[in-house]
Amino acid sequence: MKIAIDAMGGDFAPLEIVKGVEQARDRYQEIEFQLYGTAEQVKPLVKDWTRINLIPTTEVIEMGEEPVKAMRRKKDSSMVRAANAVKAGEADALFSAGNTGALLSSAIFLVGRIKGVDRPALATALPSFEGPHDQFVFMDLGANAENKPVHLYQYGILGSFYASHVLNIENARVRLLNNGAEEDKGDEVHKVAHQLMKNSHAFNFVGNIEARELLAGTADVVVADGFSGNAALKATEGTALTMLKQIKSAIMASGLSGKIGGALLKPAFKTIQKKLDYNEAGGAVILGVNAPVVKTHGSAKANAVANTMGQIKIMIENNLVGDIQTFVADHADDLKAAKQALQNDENV
Amino acid sequence: MKIAIDAMGGDFAPLEIVKGVEQARDRYQEIEFQLYGTAEQVKPLVKDWTRINLIPTTEVIEMGEEPVKAMRRKKDSSMVRAANAVKAGEADALFSAGNTGALLSSAIFLVGRIKGVDRPALATALPSFEGPHDQFVFMDLGANAENKPVHLYQYGILGSFYASHVLNIENARVRLLNNGAEEDKGDEVHKVAHQLMKNSHAFNFVGNIEARELLAGTADVVVADGFSGNAALKATEGTALTMLKQIKSAIMASGLSGKIGGALLKPAFKTIQKKLDYNEAGGAVILGVNAPVVKTHGSAKANAVANTMGQIKIMIENNLVGDIQTFVADHADDLKAAKQALQNDENV
Repeated sequence: MKIAIDAMGGDFAPLEIVKGVEQARDRYQEIEFQLYGTAEQVKPLVKDWTRINLIPTTEVIEMGEEPVKAMRRKKDSSMVRAANAVKAGEADALFSAGNTGALLSSAIFLVGRIKGVDRPALATALPSFEGPHDQFVFMDLGANAENKPVHLYQYGILGSFYASHVLNIENARVRLLNNGAEEDKGDEVHKVAHQLMKNSHAFNFVGNIEARELLAGTADVVVADGFSGNAALKATEGTALTMLKQIKSAIMASGLSGKIGGALLKPAFKTIQKKLDYNEAGGAVILGVNAPVVKTHGSAKANAVANTMGQIKIMIENNLVGDIQTFVADHADDLKAAKQALQNDENV
Repeated sequence: MKIAIDAMGGDFAPLEIVKGVEQARDRYQEIEFQLYGTAEQVKPLVKDWTRINLIPTTEVIEMGEEPVKAMRRKKDSSMVRAANAVKAGEADALFSAGNTGALLSSAIFLVGRIKGVDRPALATALPSFEGPHDQFVFMDLGANAENKPVHLYQYGILGSFYASHVLNIENARVRLLNNGAEEDKGDEVHKVAHQLMKNSHAFNFVGNIEARELLAGTADVVVADGFSGNAALKATEGTALTMLKQIKSAIMASGLSGKIGGALLKPAFKTIQKKLDYNEAGGAVILGVNAPVVKTHGSAKANAVANTMGQIKIMIENNLVGDIQTFVADHADDLKAAKQALQNDENV
């Protein structure tokens, strides 16, 4: 299998990307890596060229650039060239740690939407601290600022496939992020989405979930609109970070006994921090496009990059995208019927 | 000053409500308490009737009831009678630990919207862990499932008054919860709201905030639409709770040294937990109605109830509602102009 790599995207690119790719090359014998990047910068960093190819590019999409414009204008950028390689079938998946918006645009406009999927979404696996599984799928994390009910319904399908094919969770319990447990809660979009999901046989919908329960393990797939999904994800990250910082500073301020306590508890804290540090385990995936497209955190170091290659390998091996394509094609009539049943509702 | 109290609302009503009122009576000499509740249940609980009056009622609005219906039908319920007392000028503020939706309806339809405020909102003070102040105002927490830009703009005014009059923060830094820092981020509602807020002289708008920064002290008032505000608040609560639980169980599982560490760190953890336990400090306030209406957590015990009375006392003493009424009346033209400037935009 071949992975097209945007070697120039991310805070520590190209150094940490190249280091991560070499780590991944040593771990995963079956992967060939195509590095898209500025030759003068990338070439000196590669220590061993086994299963690594450099495809020289001349442009770089920066973090602050307007996504769609950047993608359209910088045709010889590392990201666009890598995306076009996937489009042309020269690679099986696309990796970048760069501009998220530009990667979304490249995924949707170059790699291409899966026929029948209206709006691709950004998904990630977050830790579950209780319940039967260690992780759950959370989406949309903000690929879309606005969603219609039919998008949320489709996320139930995409998320369930990610749960089964990557997290090894069969018959995933899908919940809709809403401001209450009852089915009549929420704005019009979420009320209609709830009904669509409830009446669907395409996945195992088990009702609404409130953000308070996100980490508690009561769902394997949590579907959210991009705006509130983004808010809930960031509130979760921010709170976890603030608490760890507060605990550390409380330990530092609490005199000798507190410092001894802190030292004794270090292993326990490490366990929790590791579980919370889901960015280290892999990237966020753009689901609903014709190949695995994965975005690692901009500040990802080599180890996170290498772990993400392992995650991409699983997606390719387990035919995640192919199985979604087949399912959506086979159920095109159901999807249309769901839309039609609600055609009088302007929100659908 | 007089506070009308729904003695029957909440998980531990009427016992903990009455106990809390007696604590508050002993703390605050200037408050008279009107207890609305079922006489046979409330009467035996009151130990000292100094500055406490019982107004017997025959009905109770339960937690699960449909809010507007319950308010309309149960005219002799403790909540509706207490709200009507405020409406009639017999009391200065309304307190309840009961059904949030019914209290919102009672606040809006009985106590009444302030003229010029389109949508009252639910606000609370949350802890700031960094920055110049210990707390910030967060609203709307879910009074509204959908908001228009003009509502968010008005929340900037309401929240600033709460910051100055209750939290003692002058010239409060107002931010808009959005999915990015740049002004063109978000859906149409948030883009338009940003422009309205930016162009306003009614308060000190300093830009967007992402949910990751909520607790970090970069804002004194965070304005959110009710749906994503609710999601961000609950994600914050859930994450904090999960982390404290995880730390406790990690300590229990980590052998003798971990347990000793945990014991040594107890004071440090207590400090953090206390700061996070903002429900203990007071209730959520319905801003934009003609009197202070405060909702304490359903599971509030006597101490939280008494603290909430202290919070209500400050609102009355500092003339929070009167000053909002005056400001909104004085700026009616500005508000209309803001609406008109955007009248071509159907979202306003």
